[in-house]
Amino acid sequence: MKHNATDLISFINKEIDVIEYPNQAVTLFEPIKYILSLGGKRMRPLLSLLSVEMFGGKKEDVIYPALGLEIFHNFTLLHDDLMDNSMMRRGNPTVHIKWDDNTAILSGDAMQIIAYQFIARSKNSNLSEILNLFSITALEICEGQQYDMEFEKRNDVSEEEYLEMIRLKTAVLLGCAMKIGAIAAGASNSDADLIYTFGENIGLGFQLKDDLLDVYADSAVFGKNIGGDILNDKKTFLLINALNSAQKEDRELMRKILSSEITIEPKDKIKLFTEIYNKSGAKKSCEKKIEYFYKKAFIALDSISCSEESKSILKNYVLDLIDREK
Amino acid sequence: MKHNATDLISFINKEIDVIEYPNQAVTLFEPIKYILSLGGKRMRPLLSLLSVEMFGGKKEDVIYPALGLEIFHNFTLLHDDLMDNSMMRRGNPTVHIKWDDNTAILSGDAMQIIAYQFIARSKNSNLSEILNLFSITALEICEGQQYDMEFEKRNDVSEEEYLEMIRLKTAVLLGCAMKIGAIAAGASNSDADLIYTFGENIGLGFQLKDDLLDVYADSAVFGKNIGGDILNDKKTFLLINALNSAQKEDRELMRKILSSEITIEPKDKIKLFTEIYNKSGAKKSCEKKIEYFYKKAFIALDSISCSEESKSILKNYVLDLIDREK
Repeated sequence: MKHNATDLISFINKEIDVIEYPNQAVTLFEPIKYILSLGGKRMRPLLSLLSVEMFGGKKEDVIYPALGLEIFHNFTLLHDDLMDNSMMRRGNPTVHIKWDDNTAILSGDAMQIIAYQFIARSKNSNLSEILNLFSITALEICEGQQYDMEFEKRNDVSEEEYLEMIRLKTAVLLGCAMKIGAIAAGASNSDADLIYTFGENIGLGFQLKDDLLDVYADSAVFGKNIGGDILNDKKTFLLINALNSAQKEDRELMRKILSSEITIEPKDKIKLFTEIYNKSGAKKSCEKKIEYFYKKAFIALDSISCSEESKSILKNYVLDLIDREK
Repeated sequence: MKHNATDLISFINKEIDVIEYPNQAVTLFEPIKYILSLGGKRMRPLLSLLSVEMFGGKKEDVIYPALGLEIFHNFTLLHDDLMDNSMMRRGNPTVHIKWDDNTAILSGDAMQIIAYQFIARSKNSNLSEILNLFSITALEICEGQQYDMEFEKRNDVSEEEYLEMIRLKTAVLLGCAMKIGAIAAGASNSDADLIYTFGENIGLGFQLKDDLLDVYADSAVFGKNIGGDILNDKKTFLLINALNSAQKEDRELMRKILSSEITIEPKDKIKLFTEIYNKSGAKKSCEKKIEYFYKKAFIALDSISCSEESKSILKNYVLDLIDREK
């Protein structure tokens, strides 16, 4: 029996609620419980569960490695928030703010180990393959974060470099989540690779959509303030594209603002950059790129040797996400 | 054929030299190569190799998980140095000093994943058991570090608590290293548990010996300055024992110095505390504890169902370490 996304998410949340932690050095585990309790879309474990059911497996076959992915993902948020000195996460103080830096470092380290403990609860016949895929992916995510931090200090980041950075930092974990579902269901290697390609390209599209929504979302619907990336000089696809393709005087103006040669009111900065994104074609380029990745994803999904019916729940869930406006 | 410790250490060092790292985001991996190149006794992988050969296995059977332990151990040093803000490690600047805090955090995270990649290269038949043992141990080490940091802020740490802290932070990894050797060689469960007990108790003895040498070593032989722990108010076994067992006026005097109520020249502080450790019996208590753990260790080793001859290389190596004066 295949479950819909809502049922699977509540299954995941129930499993997260009953995770048991060692009963000594309890202060080490409080921040882990805390960050996992802040919610989120649970997209990674959900993709594993949708994938395993699409390939005819049972949700129980993949729930533990799926939880491992969610724990690992939250671990990266915990350490990234510390490295970026972010104050808030999902409307609550981040771990290094609520506790302190050392707690964030050490609880994060413990969290990574707990993620591996869940990955290790894969069926023995799949353990080695799932473990290897997970470790490669986890390292790629570190590489993505490394690039992200390096790019903040650089002014010559290319579109290709940016896309590779978000592929590593975000997209590969979605591909990994889906492939783990395929492996757990005993899918063929080629189907497992195709569902990875699907997840990876969906991830690239999602991240670019995030960049776009940060500028263009309806502020009544969008959870965060519009224009946050612009105010933070974040090197998104839009900014990189505009710095390359806008008219000369607009490029000069942006450069002077980014280097603080010219100061400008926040509201005006958002308005100006948005206008440049519009007329330079950066917005259009971004939308095109999103289309390109979604198309690539669905070509891969269509090639998978499962019935259309078995693909429908996954397809509907992803199409809903694609249409999201927040 | 059984190898002596010197041969095994050079085998380990050669294997560390040829570790290959991903060829993108290279700056992420430089600190990892750096800390692994600083040397050290390579005690953990060596104990795995000595153990596997004692139980009749081959060094190749355990080299990869053994390297995983060394990488994990160095990862803990990297993050501990950041948390403790230590400037130097093995005579060289620590990673967060040579690079920066974020590099230390992220390279450490990557290093933990690489450690798991090596652990995962265990033979398939042992993978699950070795992986589970490693993860439990790794979490215990985090718990030990958590206690260590908490104890720095407390003035009522008991001897039992201190011993539990060093068991978690240091001893369990030695037990784990030896047990992984036993598992890789196909030893019986009871022998594998006995060699764990051996490693764990040797580890407890070593750590207490470290505390003792920090005060009582011959400064001409000892690598570090004598009395560093005293100057740093480190809550070692000696200090905890003396705070409980010294004469009332000595206890008061120590407390006033520790709370900075009284200031005292470094040289005089070392001299005074050393005298109190002598006359209060703290030194003797520490020596007795060390003896106790070593004895417990060798009782376990004696119970293992291998010939005396096959135990001899391990025994000699550990006896040399026990006699060390630095």
